[in-house]
Amino acid sequence: MYRTVTCGELRLADVSKTVTLAGWVQRIRKMGGMTFIDLRDRYGITQLAFNQGTDAFEQANGLGREFVLQVTGKVIERQSKNPQMPTGEIEIDVQELNILNPAVTPPFTIEDETDGGDDLRMKYRYLDLRRSCVRKNLELRHRMAFEVRRYLDEQGFLEVETPVLVNSTPEGARDFVVPSRMNPGQFYALPQSPQILKQLLMVSGFDRYFQIVKCFRDEDLRADRQPEFTQIDCEMSFVQQEDILNMFEGMSRHLFKTILNIDLPKLPRMTWADAMKYYGSDKPDTRFDMKFVELQDIFHAAEANKAEEERFSVFANAAYIGGICATGCATYTRKQLDQLTDFVKRPQVGAKGLVYARVEEDGSVKSSVDKFYTQEVLQAVAKEMNAQKGDLLLILCGEDAMKTRKQLSELRLEMGRQLGLRDPKKFSCLWVIDFPMYEWSDEENRLMAMHHPFTSPKPEDIPLMDTDPASVRANAYDMVINGVEVGGGSIRIHDAKLQEKTFEILGFTPEQAQTKFGFLMNAFKYGAPPHGGLAYGLDRFVSLFAGLDSIRDCIAFPKNNQGRDVMLGAPGLLDPVQLDELQLDVRKKPQA
Amino acid sequence: MYRTVTCGELRLADVSKTVTLAGWVQRIRKMGGMTFIDLRDRYGITQLAFNQGTDAFEQANGLGREFVLQVTGKVIERQSKNPQMPTGEIEIDVQELNILNPAVTPPFTIEDETDGGDDLRMKYRYLDLRRSCVRKNLELRHRMAFEVRRYLDEQGFLEVETPVLVNSTPEGARDFVVPSRMNPGQFYALPQSPQILKQLLMVSGFDRYFQIVKCFRDEDLRADRQPEFTQIDCEMSFVQQEDILNMFEGMSRHLFKTILNIDLPKLPRMTWADAMKYYGSDKPDTRFDMKFVELQDIFHAAEANKAEEERFSVFANAAYIGGICATGCATYTRKQLDQLTDFVKRPQVGAKGLVYARVEEDGSVKSSVDKFYTQEVLQAVAKEMNAQKGDLLLILCGEDAMKTRKQLSELRLEMGRQLGLRDPKKFSCLWVIDFPMYEWSDEENRLMAMHHPFTSPKPEDIPLMDTDPASVRANAYDMVINGVEVGGGSIRIHDAKLQEKTFEILGFTPEQAQTKFGFLMNAFKYGAPPHGGLAYGLDRFVSLFAGLDSIRDCIAFPKNNQGRDVMLGAPGLLDPVQLDELQLDVRKKPQA
Repeated sequence: MYRTVTCGELRLADVSKTVTLAGWVQRIRKMGGMTFIDLRDRYGITQLAFNQGTDAFEQANGLGREFVLQVTGKVIERQSKNPQMPTGEIEIDVQELNILNPAVTPPFTIEDETDGGDDLRMKYRYLDLRRSCVRKNLELRHRMAFEVRRYLDEQGFLEVETPVLVNSTPEGARDFVVPSRMNPGQFYALPQSPQILKQLLMVSGFDRYFQIVKCFRDEDLRADRQPEFTQIDCEMSFVQQEDILNMFEGMSRHLFKTILNIDLPKLPRMTWADAMKYYGSDKPDTRFDMKFVELQDIFHAAEANKAEEERFSVFANAAYIGGICATGCATYTRKQLDQLTDFVKRPQVGAKGLVYARVEEDGSVKSSVDKFYTQEVLQAVAKEMNAQKGDLLLILCGEDAMKTRKQLSELRLEMGRQLGLRDPKKFSCLWVIDFPMYEWSDEENRLMAMHHPFTSPKPEDIPLMDTDPASVRANAYDMVINGVEVGGGSIRIHDAKLQEKTFEILGFTPEQAQTKFGFLMNAFKYGAPPHGGLAYGLDRFVSLFAGLDSIRDCIAFPKNNQGRDVMLGAPGLLDPVQLDELQLDVRKKPQA
Repeated sequence: MYRTVTCGELRLADVSKTVTLAGWVQRIRKMGGMTFIDLRDRYGITQLAFNQGTDAFEQANGLGREFVLQVTGKVIERQSKNPQMPTGEIEIDVQELNILNPAVTPPFTIEDETDGGDDLRMKYRYLDLRRSCVRKNLELRHRMAFEVRRYLDEQGFLEVETPVLVNSTPEGARDFVVPSRMNPGQFYALPQSPQILKQLLMVSGFDRYFQIVKCFRDEDLRADRQPEFTQIDCEMSFVQQEDILNMFEGMSRHLFKTILNIDLPKLPRMTWADAMKYYGSDKPDTRFDMKFVELQDIFHAAEANKAEEERFSVFANAAYIGGICATGCATYTRKQLDQLTDFVKRPQVGAKGLVYARVEEDGSVKSSVDKFYTQEVLQAVAKEMNAQKGDLLLILCGEDAMKTRKQLSELRLEMGRQLGLRDPKKFSCLWVIDFPMYEWSDEENRLMAMHHPFTSPKPEDIPLMDTDPASVRANAYDMVINGVEVGGGSIRIHDAKLQEKTFEILGFTPEQAQTKFGFLMNAFKYGAPPHGGLAYGLDRFVSLFAGLDSIRDCIAFPKNNQGRDVMLGAPGLLDPVQLDELQLDVRKKPQA
């Protein structure tokens, strides 16, 4: 070893020991006859002191930032201690300095608050990773993955590696593919998830399976998507939904306790219908309340009493009118309200306008629709919304209840943000359950599986499959934390008849079903146990725990929005020999 | 849960409890008024008893193998106990039987000794995995991976996930590639190992990195190769070779102790030169001795005293003559010796012939070359080889010492096998160290890096880089267990000058070196710590622990020698739309 101690461990009790450290130069300060260097490694920073007149002092004055050093010296008590640093009470009186490697000046400062922009830091990600705020995210990721494994191992789960070179996913997103040289013209696909393989492992009797596994989707990238991402993928046999919810609530509790020292309370459960009704989202951020209140009854009743020309046609014609109550926001200025109106009218949100009302100190309600409604109606609205003096009511309406709820959800999240109700250090977890089995696809002009085609309906809803399939609820569940879906899954269908029926509802002929899913269906014929599971997005889980906005910051070497690793320069051009071996031609001349 | 207990846990102490079990029908035995069913799950087998006259009895008689059942009944003491089974003292008096799923008859028996051939079992791998002997391998794999993580976590290693979509490996084997839809004409490569990324993590100051990670090589497959395989990949900073050997010897000791309850002794270290000299292999199977003895001095001296026409030209002209002593094998028949001769003459071994000599009970030596050598010479040979009465000496010779040693190594392994000296339950581990830095490539007509181009020479051999580079030894090491290289690695070069020198020796111009390795070299400029690491092949490590011949049996879903997953039917044809999106054309019409 090039060191006897790390840069994070020396304390006052170590004074007078002779030690050897190795690390990087974080900072150099020259003060008269002394030079001080902060030496950094993964474990911390230790101050080195060089006295004029020593050889080491002369050497130290020739060093630069990020040089790699090995030093030997005596631990001494500092004259001016630094209580911010764990090692702040001591320094090293350096006797010997050995430059292990020089360094050219890095293109940005290696500090938590760096002067490097995003692109530059990604290009030099290996330097960006030197910043302790970045490294800490990856340390957290290691610890979370380790604790997941420890918990699941203790619960009897086996981690089984499933292959990366597989075949295309029926009904999935777009696959990444890998041409096979040994089978020219044929391609492997990279897995979007090990869904089918984990179900096969249940057929194999593995009983409890998990895997922390890379998955791949060739989708156009949004801010928070990566072409490769990591799942905590789990499946259990001989279980009902309740067993899975309990098992994985336990896993989350274990993580919160061991990682954050937070005692997670019993998770509330919210039906998908309630989540949509009260939050306009299947992943409600329940760190704050501000539930939706439906107002169409009040307003429609008010409209019904009016003459045609006095009507507020926007509300009168709206199938859905919903509001949220922003506590204490009656003081919002006209400018702030205009900004909120602009916010909801942005194409990403898509509302036509915003109606607002203030509950004044005297109890009266002043609104942007005063000319259409009596104080009585407005008071009824305030009462329905449980608004108090000083509150601001924000109301949206629309033809389509679901669309309007989603707009109102965006507004609610924005208000939560403005009011500081979305503290990343505070956690609110819940299960969203009873998802619909199917959702209508305008594109495909048929019902589609909301989760996936193997999801089991709720037993009590099976009769509805014949009469009103769109209303059938599934044994499907999501774990939501702070408005983020961190995990989700379902109980699977293990009954062949029920599976046939759901394929029928999805509009597949028996032949199509056989072509797409015949392989798994065949496996099921050999004795499939009742089973179910779920998968967590590890990247999201870690970024939540780290209080990060983006998953990118908890990935060591992420790709940018063009799917490029700018550090590695991937993807790149192939050697023509490789294309020959693969029997492939590239159509367009690629840009180098 | 569909059960209150598993099929592996009931004992005599549980008698009279009412329990519910779920599992698969392993076996049905009808005996007069009773029917017995062995119910199987991952945890074991429990006998179910059905009494004539009950509803359950009638149902039970309609069941078949591999049906999935749920049963409730009372635990009773068995009349005829089965001491072979952990649950063999009890059975379940079944009161209620619920068929969770029927099963069609599987294409082979779900028994350790199955009637299914290899191809059939791979096609129905999900049924093959039901066999407990197969499942046990995967349980072992889980446990080993978990213990690896536990050990490395305790030693301060961070598991960091590196990307799967990367770029081509310079100087590596053939890459699997992934066309990029967002960057048409460009390709990602799947990693052959995270070598460069883990070295970058050292540059980043991660200090101790590991990852259990899938790697990919598009090579023509041999019996024991898979296109995707799993590495335990490790790297450490501020270390010398000694630190790495100790750390990972510790890891192996931890695995042997926790998994096999074997106390691994301190690992012997053998130089590569000795391994080649005494075993003809850089991965000697040291479960047995049978070291090579070099005989060219004795035989050449004998030849020197003879007239030209009396010479045994084969030995006289051989640069190398080496023998092994097979204890107690003087009784080998002529037929056995002919078979050994055939063995060494097989093209895979490639020797021209085999010379043998027996040490008879009277101490005389009888050999296949008696007419060329006096008893005195043969006695000298026997003495040199430390042969005793009843031993058999087997001797090979050749022009090329290295080639002949490799042939003799094959013969040694074959003799070890014949003599039962290669017991898979016995383990012999060692480090092979001091590998050569370079090896000559006839194909490339230059020196090639034996390990990889970043491997550090032994400091004392650095001067030889100028004078005799082929003799330079590297700080490279392999861990060998029972003749299998389970792990290997090296200390890396962190000095830019030394790196330039080794590129020069490898025949790269500075420009070529920059093109191939510039990216890593650039990173090193920003302050690279001294570092080194190694990687274990998890598949091999598990198969060794399991006593398996092939790595395939410890992989859940392996590929065959054509790189196909016959169960999934991968690789397969792409939809033309996908090819359009990827801007690719397939040259040959592929076979469906």
